[in-house]
Amino acid sequence: MNLAIIRYFLGWILNVEAVLMLLPCGAALLYGERSGIYFVITLALCAGIGILCTFRKPKNSIFYAKEGFVSVALSWIVLSIMGALPFYLSREIPCFEDALFEVVSGFTTTGSSILPDVEALSRCMLLWRSFTHWVGGMGVIVFMLAVLPLAGGGYNMHIMRAESPGPSVGKLVPKVRQTAKILYLLYFIITLVQILLLLLSGMPVFDTLCMSFGTAGTGGFGILNSSAASYTYLQQGIITVFMILFGINFNVYYLFWIRKPKDAFGCEEARAYLGIIAVSILLIGWNIRHLFPSLLVAFHHAAFQVGTIITTTGFATTDFDLWPEFSKTILVVLMFVGACAGSTGGGMKVSRILIAFKQVKRELGNLIHPQSVKILKLEGKKLEHNVIRSANGYFLAYAIIFAVSLLLVSLDGFDMTTNMTAVAATFNNIGPGLAKVGPTCNWSGFSAFSKYVFMFDMLAGRLEIFPMLLLFSPGTWKKGF
Amino acid sequence: MNLAIIRYFLGWILNVEAVLMLLPCGAALLYGERSGIYFVITLALCAGIGILCTFRKPKNSIFYAKEGFVSVALSWIVLSIMGALPFYLSREIPCFEDALFEVVSGFTTTGSSILPDVEALSRCMLLWRSFTHWVGGMGVIVFMLAVLPLAGGGYNMHIMRAESPGPSVGKLVPKVRQTAKILYLLYFIITLVQILLLLLSGMPVFDTLCMSFGTAGTGGFGILNSSAASYTYLQQGIITVFMILFGINFNVYYLFWIRKPKDAFGCEEARAYLGIIAVSILLIGWNIRHLFPSLLVAFHHAAFQVGTIITTTGFATTDFDLWPEFSKTILVVLMFVGACAGSTGGGMKVSRILIAFKQVKRELGNLIHPQSVKILKLEGKKLEHNVIRSANGYFLAYAIIFAVSLLLVSLDGFDMTTNMTAVAATFNNIGPGLAKVGPTCNWSGFSAFSKYVFMFDMLAGRLEIFPMLLLFSPGTWKKGF
Repeated sequence: MNLAIIRYFLGWILNVEAVLMLLPCGAALLYGERSGIYFVITLALCAGIGILCTFRKPKNSIFYAKEGFVSVALSWIVLSIMGALPFYLSREIPCFEDALFEVVSGFTTTGSSILPDVEALSRCMLLWRSFTHWVGGMGVIVFMLAVLPLAGGGYNMHIMRAESPGPSVGKLVPKVRQTAKILYLLYFIITLVQILLLLLSGMPVFDTLCMSFGTAGTGGFGILNSSAASYTYLQQGIITVFMILFGINFNVYYLFWIRKPKDAFGCEEARAYLGIIAVSILLIGWNIRHLFPSLLVAFHHAAFQVGTIITTTGFATTDFDLWPEFSKTILVVLMFVGACAGSTGGGMKVSRILIAFKQVKRELGNLIHPQSVKILKLEGKKLEHNVIRSANGYFLAYAIIFAVSLLLVSLDGFDMTTNMTAVAATFNNIGPGLAKVGPTCNWSGFSAFSKYVFMFDMLAGRLEIFPMLLLFSPGTWKKGF
Repeated sequence: MNLAIIRYFLGWILNVEAVLMLLPCGAALLYGERSGIYFVITLALCAGIGILCTFRKPKNSIFYAKEGFVSVALSWIVLSIMGALPFYLSREIPCFEDALFEVVSGFTTTGSSILPDVEALSRCMLLWRSFTHWVGGMGVIVFMLAVLPLAGGGYNMHIMRAESPGPSVGKLVPKVRQTAKILYLLYFIITLVQILLLLLSGMPVFDTLCMSFGTAGTGGFGILNSSAASYTYLQQGIITVFMILFGINFNVYYLFWIRKPKDAFGCEEARAYLGIIAVSILLIGWNIRHLFPSLLVAFHHAAFQVGTIITTTGFATTDFDLWPEFSKTILVVLMFVGACAGSTGGGMKVSRILIAFKQVKRELGNLIHPQSVKILKLEGKKLEHNVIRSANGYFLAYAIIFAVSLLLVSLDGFDMTTNMTAVAATFNNIGPGLAKVGPTCNWSGFSAFSKYVFMFDMLAGRLEIFPMLLLFSPGTWKKGF
C-alpha cells in the first residue's frame, strides 16, 4: 500500500473542501450570521492540513486499484468529518455523531436527518447542508479530476470508476479529465435551469438555491420542517420534473449535447426508468385517489413521491406513510430499484435490474436448451462476462450488508417496518422510510451505534459497496497482497 | 412439447397418490370416522384417471429437459388438487381455495394453515394433512423413481434435478433409481427412530405419527391449536434435534452409512449450517433470557425456534412474535437462509449462501488484482461456472418473485411486516411469519387472490423456482422452441 500517495490525495480533497466552504462563509457574511465563524475556522483547518499534505509530491507515484478504492473511501470519510465540524463547533448540532450523520447523509445525497426542527439552523448552515448534496451528487473526486491537473497517470479511471454509480462507467470521451469536465458542465447547466425556473415561479432565492442543490444531487434535505409540502403545486411540479431528469444517465444529455438525439432516445436504461416511473404513477395515483380532493391532485402527489423515491431524493409533499399498503409497497420496491447508472441517483440502478431480468430469462432458456449459448446485451452491446460477474457480486454483497445492518439496528428494538425501511432508505441514499422514519419523522431516536451503522450504509450505498468493504477488509492492508 | 409423455407421467403420479391415500383410509377405518369415505372416493378418482392415462405407453418416449420441468411442476399441482378433494368434499374445509392452500402448504412442507381451529378436523384428515409433509419432504417423484421401473431412459436425472432442493444434485450412486431408493430408505429409518423416541417419551401414537411426519418433511403442521407448545420439554427437545437432523444434507447420512465418517464430518455445508444454528441459539437465548423463568428454558425455546425456522419446519412452542426485535430479526434472516441442499428443508439453502459469500470475497480480490483468476471451491471441489451462474440466476429470480408477490399481496391492505413475512414464510416453505401471520395466527384473513399468490410461492419455493417459471412462461409452449 502506497500510503504517501493516499496522503497526497487526501490533502487535495481537503484543499477542495476548503474552497467549497467559501460558499457558506459568503452566505454568513451576506446574512450577517455569527455562526459563519465556524466555517472560517474549519476552512482554515482544511486548508492547513491540506497544504501540509500536498506540499511534497510523493516520490513513488504508483497508484494501483487498491490505492484508488482506499483513497476514495477515505476521501468521503475525511470530507464528512471536516464537513461536520461547523455544525458541531457552533453547537447547532451539539452531538458529534449527529453532526456527522447529517453531513454523511448530505454528501451521500441520502437526505435522512436527525434534526427534529430544521428551521432552527442558521442560514449558512442550511446552505452548507444542501450544498453537500450538490457536491456529493456528481462526486467530489470527479470534480477534483475536472478542475485539477493532478497527475497525467492512468490511475484517474480507477478513481472515477470507484466513485461513479453504476455497473459500468462509460467514458464519454477518451480522456478522463475531459469526461469529468463535461459531466460537471452538464450538471451545472441543468441545475441553473432549475434555479431559474424556481425563481420565476416566485420561490425565495435562498429556498431556490437549497432546493435546487437537493434536487440536483437527488439528496432531499429540505430547509423547512414541512420539506416540500408548503411550496405551490407549480413549484412542486418543477421539482418533480427535475428530480426525474437528474435520475437519468448523464450520457443521454451528452448525446443530446453532441446532437445525437436518436441515440439519446434509444437509451435502453432511460426508457426502462421512465417506463417504471409512468406505471408506478398510474398505479399509485389510482390507488390514492380517494385521499385527495381531485384525481389531478392525487396524481400530482403520486408523481412527486414516485419521482422522489425512485431517484432516491427524498423530499416529501405529503405523509405517504398514511397511504394504502399497495402504494407504500410500490414505493418500497422503487427504493431498491433506484435511478439510472451515471446519474446522481442511488439505489441498485435500473441497468442492474435490467441485467438481472436478462440473466433470469437466459437461465430459463438454458434450462430448456442446455447446450445453447446466449449472449446478453444491454444498450445494444454485448454484456461482458466481468460486467455480469461484478453486477452479481454487487447484488450478493448488497444482500449481505442489508441483512447484517438489519440485525445490528434491530438491537434498538424498533419495529420491523421501521428497521427495514431505515436500512433501505440509508443504503439506497433515499432519506425517508416508513413508520418511525417516515416522511414526517427523523432519525434522532436511534442509538449512536445504529447511527454509525447507517453512516456506513450511506457511504457504502453511495460508493457502490466495494470501496467501503475494501477499506475494512484486512486483506487490503496486508503487506504484499 | 411431447404431451403424450407428460400425460403418461401425470397418470403415474395419480396412481401413486391413490396408493398414498390408503393411509388415511386405514386411519378412518381404525377410528371409525365417516369422513373416510371421501378418501375412498378420491382414491377411486385418482386410480381411475391414473389408469386411463397410463394404460397406453406413449409411442414417442422422447423426454427433454423441458418436458421434465413441466412434468414436475404439473405433478405437484395435480397432486395438490386431488389431495385437497377430501377436505373440500367432506366440507371440513368448505372453501375450495382454502382446502387447496392447506394441501399445497402440506406437500410443499410449508405448514402455513388457514384453519383457525385445527382440532375440529377428523383424525383421518389430520393424518393425511401431516402425511403430505412426509411425502413432499423427500419428494413424491423421487419416491416414484425409487419404487417404479418407469423407463430405462436417461431422463430420470432431469426429473430428479427439478424436484430436489439445492444448487447441484449429487447422485449418491451412478444410478438414479438406486440413489432415490437410498434416499428414501435413510428418510424412512430416521423418521422411524423419531417415532420410537417420541413413543418412549409418552406421546400418544397418533400425535407421534403426525408430529414425526411434520418434522421429517420439515413441514410444520401441528394437530393441536397450540402447535407443539403443550408437549413436554423432553418431547420438544426430541423434535428440536430431529428438525435439525432433517435439515442436513442427506449425503452426510449416506457417508455415515457407507462408513466414511471422516468425509461426513468434513461436509462444508453441514458445518456452516450447524455453526449458524449454534450462533443463533446463543444470541437469541441470551436476548430472551428475561422472558423465561430460567436461562435453560430460554435456551430451550431459542433452540426450538431456531431449529424450526432455519429448517423451515414451522412448529411453535411459544409466540416468538412477542420476542425482542433483535431475536425476531435473526429469525427472519434465518427464514431466508434455510437448510442444507439435499435435505427436506426449504429456503435459499446454506450452500447457496456459501456460494454467495465466496463470490463476494472473490469480487473483492478481483478489484485489487484485476488480472488474477481465482477458482471458487465448495466441499473441496471446484465450483463449475454453470453452477455459479445457476445459483445467481436463482438469487435474481428469487428477488424478483419476492418483490412481485409482495406487491400483489399488499393489495389486501395488511401491514408491511405481515406481508413481508407472509411471503417469506410461504416462499421459503416455513409456515408462520410475524404479526398477523405469527405463530398464534392463521392465513384465513387473506383474499382468495392472495392465497393463490401464496400457493404459487410455496410451489415455486419447494421446486426451486424454475419449474414453476417455465410452466408459466410462454416460450415453453411455443412450437419448435
